[in-house]
Amino acid sequence: MNKYEIIANSIEQYIHDNKLEQGTKLPSLDQLMKEHNVSKSTITKALDTLEKRGAIFQQRGSGIFVRRQRREGYVSLLTNRGFTADLKEFNITSEVLKLERMKADDEVKMNLHLEGNEEVYYVERLRRIDNDILCIEVSYFPVKLVTYLNNEIAEGSIFNYLTDALKFNISFADIYMHIDELNDIDAKKLELKQGNPALFLEQVVYLATGEPFDFSKITYHYKHSKFFVQATNY
Amino acid sequence: MNKYEIIANSIEQYIHDNKLEQGTKLPSLDQLMKEHNVSKSTITKALDTLEKRGAIFQQRGSGIFVRRQRREGYVSLLTNRGFTADLKEFNITSEVLKLERMKADDEVKMNLHLEGNEEVYYVERLRRIDNDILCIEVSYFPVKLVTYLNNEIAEGSIFNYLTDALKFNISFADIYMHIDELNDIDAKKLELKQGNPALFLEQVVYLATGEPFDFSKITYHYKHSKFFVQATNY
Repeated sequence: MNKYEIIANSIEQYIHDNKLEQGTKLPSLDQLMKEHNVSKSTITKALDTLEKRGAIFQQRGSGIFVRRQRREGYVSLLTNRGFTADLKEFNITSEVLKLERMKADDEVKMNLHLEGNEEVYYVERLRRIDNDILCIEVSYFPVKLVTYLNNEIAEGSIFNYLTDALKFNISFADIYMHIDELNDIDAKKLELKQGNPALFLEQVVYLATGEPFDFSKITYHYKHSKFFVQATNY
Repeated sequence: MNKYEIIANSIEQYIHDNKLEQGTKLPSLDQLMKEHNVSKSTITKALDTLEKRGAIFQQRGSGIFVRRQRREGYVSLLTNRGFTADLKEFNITSEVLKLERMKADDEVKMNLHLEGNEEVYYVERLRRIDNDILCIEVSYFPVKLVTYLNNEIAEGSIFNYLTDALKFNISFADIYMHIDELNDIDAKKLELKQGNPALFLEQVVYLATGEPFDFSKITYHYKHSKFFVQATNY
């Protein structure tokens, strides 16, 4: 981790630990520089990182303020996608229902920019949040990028494995969502009834090189999934 | 609009008009500088804006690439929130069901940081996308900030009015989502049946000063609402 990331995390932890409310004024840039004993450019980078994360907002001339005001029980839509090391508030566990190497079908090829007979790891997982069923997640990873995967890894965080062990530089994701009624098969897996409402989410996640390495289809349990998104106007 | 915004829009329009696919390499920074006849700092700002919008990605050493790959029929979750002047692909219209000044109740006061007997504009709208019912939207705007509102304005884009006429500097939003079954009242308004699935979204939108000026509750028609979100890893 870079110095500015360590400082950003420490400021975020401070906001969290002290339960600072939205709009609370934080120390000035100069004060933060002295406190953390770093250069102006490092503290500026740390603050920009926190602003992008939605933890603070900076108002020219008047100061730095706490932005985050999270409702209890809501999971960050983006964090949950394997993004950003947010402060962990939920215990999310994964049960691997199936894991195998297979040839990519047309839909998978299109989403992962694959050709010919290229292979993918297929992983189907049942994910729980604090012991409640959160979702069924079906993921495809191209073998040419994700060279190895097993049950033990898939029971934990595949994203942590990709960044830590395979040194993936994960950069961005496209997420598609719609709402519909559950079919019989998904309903059984989620321990719900056919016709119950569900959120269907598809995501394609990319490396900094622009190569897609993860195509996932996720079906959320409507009683156990609440999301928040922080939007910033550009 | 600033110079860099005009250039950013022109590059985005170029990508759109030429239907450039994801991963397509764009001209280099130097070429873009010459082409648009602007300084390096202006073109850098334009490219950073496009990167934040999710239209491009920049890879140090190898160039600038097209990022956006939008599926047809999906509305940007953030654009639809009144954010970012995206390329207009959908015709969204609003029918005002109710508009009145009223005292804020406790829930509204909490979300808009109001106290005592402060008043809000209450607006209930039925929104259509290409003639299909998209959602029922109930919004609260504090009168101290949104000093005037009428039916004619609410039939169009309230956000355009706030930025153009009232010169609002809209900065960020907190969005909360969950899925559930429709109750009888909402089902009638959406021309659906009680028990049908629905996406329920709440948003609080803020000025650059950190003041919340819009608290909205939106109930989406499950057959006519598909969303995409572009996520960036920080």
